[in-house]
Amino acid sequence: MTKQELTAEIFKQNSMLCVGLDSDINLIPKHLLQYADPIFEFNKQIIDATHQVTVAYKPNIAFYEAMGIEGWKSLEKTIQYLNKNYPECFTIADAKRGDIGNTSSMYAKAFFEWLNFHSVTVAPYMGNDSVTPFLSYKNKWVILLGLTSNKGSNDFQFQPIENEHLYEKVIRTAQQWGSSEQLMFVTGATHPTQLAGIRKLAEEYFFLVPGIGAQGGSIDAVCENAINSSGGLLINSARQIIYASPNEDFAETAYNMALQTVKPMQKFLTALV
Amino acid sequence: MTKQELTAEIFKQNSMLCVGLDSDINLIPKHLLQYADPIFEFNKQIIDATHQVTVAYKPNIAFYEAMGIEGWKSLEKTIQYLNKNYPECFTIADAKRGDIGNTSSMYAKAFFEWLNFHSVTVAPYMGNDSVTPFLSYKNKWVILLGLTSNKGSNDFQFQPIENEHLYEKVIRTAQQWGSSEQLMFVTGATHPTQLAGIRKLAEEYFFLVPGIGAQGGSIDAVCENAINSSGGLLINSARQIIYASPNEDFAETAYNMALQTVKPMQKFLTALV
Repeated sequence: MTKQELTAEIFKQNSMLCVGLDSDINLIPKHLLQYADPIFEFNKQIIDATHQVTVAYKPNIAFYEAMGIEGWKSLEKTIQYLNKNYPECFTIADAKRGDIGNTSSMYAKAFFEWLNFHSVTVAPYMGNDSVTPFLSYKNKWVILLGLTSNKGSNDFQFQPIENEHLYEKVIRTAQQWGSSEQLMFVTGATHPTQLAGIRKLAEEYFFLVPGIGAQGGSIDAVCENAINSSGGLLINSARQIIYASPNEDFAETAYNMALQTVKPMQKFLTALV
Repeated sequence: MTKQELTAEIFKQNSMLCVGLDSDINLIPKHLLQYADPIFEFNKQIIDATHQVTVAYKPNIAFYEAMGIEGWKSLEKTIQYLNKNYPECFTIADAKRGDIGNTSSMYAKAFFEWLNFHSVTVAPYMGNDSVTPFLSYKNKWVILLGLTSNKGSNDFQFQPIENEHLYEKVIRTAQQWGSSEQLMFVTGATHPTQLAGIRKLAEEYFFLVPGIGAQGGSIDAVCENAINSSGGLLINSARQIIYASPNEDFAETAYNMALQTVKPMQKFLTALV
């Protein structure tokens, strides 16, 4: 998917919502356990119910990997279902992969060829040759960890390097590896005061923003600090939407919660038109 | 596996060799393609041939993930084969995972419960809560990226932070999270002059050392700079051993290459006894 197509979709849907498919067999509604593949059935119903207010879906790969072969099969079916039925939705493999060059190529093959996601999240610690193999795919995206939403971001990402912090060094350096047509950054909603600075550092780039909802970040603060003329944000919510109800009405309730999550974004998007 | 057991095995085998199972369907001997699972057959024969001079096996997960469901099945069979037939061998899932706390727990479940590896490599960028979920398993290990062997290690790992480099900050900080009974560090053989400094920083810890062979690191230099009284090193070689011959004699040739790789380690180990 191109940046132009993603931007068009954001304005068409009037939404920057990314729904996180952190689907856990212990948390999905119990009545789904009768299905042959409960996780796929859960994802399918969540996607069908929410796609009209959603521009991106982001399965976190850990939840599938933890279930072994069956988990990978559920993931495979989910991305196939998305690509077939909702090709306009941007898809993110939240995998946080990264290895030496020839090995990162193998991860790129997994997520871009086998599973055919539009994008994959990548960890920056190993530097250039761990990231660039993912950038060799046309119309595929790397979403590089910049400033993450978790408490542990304080340990290394906020370390001072010359006149900036490590996360700023990462975001500045990575722009030499990929343009805003193929590279995005993960910037956590839990750091609203830093978001404005990151936007200045990477004006044209999309940010994937986790940390609203369960983690406590505010959509208003994210938009005020980091929206750009393309929208430039994919704001993720997972647990708060997908587990909004434990009952048979889970998909409808997820839709209502998604709609409620999108509302605060819409005044910012409308102001751009 | 405990540190004491691993150390005993090193002295028993007189070896610190870790064989990297970076098994690629395009590089294994052609006659194996007739098997139902060529990658498992390749791994099995490599393991059977080399286990007498090897203390650890390290499948790099990317090579399996790139093959989709079939790749994960090959990996599952490989680790089951190792655990059943060679329980004395230390096993490393070279996965370089890491995510926010509850998500890292899912990765830990994948590698320690589903696949039952002794250890998993973890990326440090996301800090404390991305690493500690892996440390809650008894007799399982985290192998944290410290100073990696690739060219990209120059981008961020060598950045100066106060009086040290980022990789030193990582190695120093992580010792507050886990003892040398459950935490190791990845330290590349391609940085021999830094290895002595890292050993001073983490005297009791094991290091997983990639970068000899194809990447150009020297076993002598690694041992001179970083051996400790337990051995304290797992020195990895992959391509140079597993692809030593493209013919039907590949397993025997791999054994010969493994033996040749172990030789330079033995004078250092013997000197410790």
